[in-house]
Amino acid sequence: MSTNNDISIKARVSELLEQVRKKKPLVHHITNYVTVNDCANAVLAIGGSPVMADDIGEVCDIISISSALVINMGTLNERTVESMIAAGKRANELGIPVVLDPVGAGASRLRDKAANRIIDEVKLAVIRGNISEIKAISGIASGTKGVDASEEDILSSGKLDYGKSVASSLSCRLDCVVAITGPVDIVAGKDIVYFIENGDKMLSMITGSGCMCTSLIAVYCGVTDNYLDAAAAGLVTMGLAGEMARESMAEGSFGSGTFRARLIDSLYCIRTDDIQERGRVSCHES
Amino acid sequence: MSTNNDISIKARVSELLEQVRKKKPLVHHITNYVTVNDCANAVLAIGGSPVMADDIGEVCDIISISSALVINMGTLNERTVESMIAAGKRANELGIPVVLDPVGAGASRLRDKAANRIIDEVKLAVIRGNISEIKAISGIASGTKGVDASEEDILSSGKLDYGKSVASSLSCRLDCVVAITGPVDIVAGKDIVYFIENGDKMLSMITGSGCMCTSLIAVYCGVTDNYLDAAAAGLVTMGLAGEMARESMAEGSFGSGTFRARLIDSLYCIRTDDIQERGRVSCHES
Amino acid sequence: MSTNNDISIKARVSELLEQVRKKKPLVHHITNYVTVNDCANAVLAIGGSPVMADDIGEVCDIISISSALVINMGTLNERTVESMIAAGKRANELGIPVVLDPVGAGASRLRDKAANRIIDEVKLAVIRGNISEIKAISGIASGTKGVDASEEDILSSGKLDYGKSVASSLSCRLDCVVAITGPVDIVAGKDIVYFIENGDKMLSMITGSGCMCTSLIAVYCGVTDNYLDAAAAGLVTMGLAGEMARESMAEGSFGSGTFRARLIDSLYCIRTDDIQERGRVSCHES
Repeated sequence: MSTNNDISIKARVSELLEQVRKKKPLVHHITNYVTVNDCANAVLAIGGSPVMADDIGEVCDIISISSALVINMGTLNERTVESMIAAGKRANELGIPVVLDPVGAGASRLRDKAANRIIDEVKLAVIRGNISEIKAISGIASGTKGVDASEEDILSSGKLDYGKSVASSLSCRLDCVVAITGPVDIVAGKDIVYFIENGDKMLSMITGSGCMCTSLIAVYCGVTDNYLDAAAAGLVTMGLAGEMARESMAEGSFGSGTFRARLIDSLYCIRTDDIQERGRVSCHES
Repeated sequence: MSTNNDISIKARVSELLEQVRKKKPLVHHITNYVTVNDCANAVLAIGGSPVMADDIGEVCDIISISSALVINMGTLNERTVESMIAAGKRANELGIPVVLDPVGAGASRLRDKAANRIIDEVKLAVIRGNISEIKAISGIASGTKGVDASEEDILSSGKLDYGKSVASSLSCRLDCVVAITGPVDIVAGKDIVYFIENGDKMLSMITGSGCMCTSLIAVYCGVTDNYLDAAAAGLVTMGLAGEMARESMAEGSFGSGTFRARLIDSLYCIRTDDIQERGRVSCHES
Repeated sequence: MSTNNDISIKARVSELLEQVRKKKPLVHHITNYVTVNDCANAVLAIGGSPVMADDIGEVCDIISISSALVINMGTLNERTVESMIAAGKRANELGIPVVLDPVGAGASRLRDKAANRIIDEVKLAVIRGNISEIKAISGIASGTKGVDASEEDILSSGKLDYGKSVASSLSCRLDCVVAITGPVDIVAGKDIVYFIENGDKMLSMITGSGCMCTSLIAVYCGVTDNYLDAAAAGLVTMGLAGEMARESMAEGSFGSGTFRARLIDSLYCIRTDDIQERGRVSCHES
């Protein structure tokens, strides 16, 4: 673990945030109808531009004008799986990064099958999920509880070495960046793993925290070829926005409804100084 | 009407709220894309865990790990009707309670047909609707106005005896709990009817009040076999949260956008003491 | 340009707002799943009643009890295109106004084809889009960027004469009202063009501003046969609500999440006096 590296990743994340606000990358989403509005607002707030389109008759047109693609498996159906594969393949041909959010992997055979097909047929830049989802994709038995990580999986991920090994193995196998979000976030690339300790427990009290995090990663992927940095940037930004949202709320007066609005506010307001001063990223060998 | 009973139902609702926060029941939703995000956030705020999945290829897997099923007919389509039936039947086999929200029943033949099929093929624990929807399901001509109750129907439901009789008849016919929400909420079971007088008129100024109420009922159904209590708990909680949301807003300064966030805040903050002190439930013979 | 006309349009818009709050027009939406919740809340806040239904088996029933129809092309798919056409044709037969929001026209061939089919087969009361979308529909090459107007198109629309000529030409060709939203909104009818200078740049930082604007236009179409006035009313109301939302936020403290809630608050709170005192509408010959 190197302190020098820690400083340099925060500097690079700050630089990426500036790039996002300058270039306003268009991020194509094929995503679920539960959190789609949250994702669109999160992308706009950080400085990107969202476009949601899932018909197989247009996804190849839409991806061709976009800077990144989000494939989010929440509320998956047979029609949209085909669109995900088609858009992913076209993105690969065009060199556009693809970010997969395997929502609920492990909770149904349909989702497992879809995740496997996507992984087989599309070259991914980043996969982001909770520990249960990433274990499911890795073929490790997991105690999924719908779309949330199971208690036992969260506990075992508390053992950071375990989570790190799960993320690194999958990263190695698929040759893509793997991000596991939880009490401590883990981002694994080829040789390096980041631990990110920003965040707030209120993030688990609203729907869409994970999906928005994935969308932010895709926004950052839209402005760099370094997808490991982009994934770290998405997680730091989301975690920090969660902290800032909590701090902006009067003690004891408010709950998850106000937190949700303040989270978007914080993404809108976050500055590179916040990342430099408050980002908590440590760098480790893979 | 018995004062003793009134106290005991409030104690039981309080107990159910504690159970929800302890057990975090997973509630499977097959629901509409208008209010799905509101429902997810309401379920999380009260202490449950939402999962939304509507593809016929996975609903049976998802229901098998869930504690309750919501079938919400808003933005119904031919594809999702089949998923609703399949998931409902599987829930019945597994002894998992099914809660139906017949959104817009009476507004189209498709919805009437779907409601009838669901009622015929799935054993329901609770049906919750507005007076127009419940009348439509009961086969009584109603003056539906889209997804809102018609003025004349609300007026006639003001005659509480009328609403009580509609709810009791349907409850008797289908052998399930029937809840009619309106200025005064009515919950009818086999021998007992509750009137619940909590609520705020701002609830009718946002979309999703009814849907969220149904989701809350399902959350409570996930921790008890007494679905009459669970339905009463959902209505008391929603009504009280509406009152608390209104009270938290500075006089004259805010509108329905802030109310909506505060409603979720209130679900997040509500304590058993609030129910004991402010719940307004009266108990009547059926 | 006539000052007298300016005063009279604001008086007429105020009158329309009163009519909306009195009649609560039911507005049928066939719309996207990204901003559908925002549209429903905006319609409720201004005083209308929203109903969302997209299955071809029920859209003709639903339109028959409605006062206006919104066809919004965001997250279009092959199934919903057919519903849009069917509902639009039935609305035409019943004399119910149809408002088209050609979201993302120009961004994919599917959307262009759908827009053309809708225009060919359905008589429209109003089309509302950004400059890129309206140019695409007009058959003018445009630099669309997904669902947002391109920078170059916005710049060229800054040349108000250019935007006016685009809107007037399309209005003339299709014999319907054409509204282009942007830094200055343009509404073109048969002989008259309005420029509307209300609004706030925060409106471009949230998803759904355009969609909500279209829904408001449809609400107003539900209470008058003068669709030019209705379109102007929708744009003035939305722009003014944006200004009021911004003003209600403490300087520097909040961002786009709070703005979004305050926007709905402002639609809920807006009075006819606000329109009279703060509306910025100028009237021009076509």
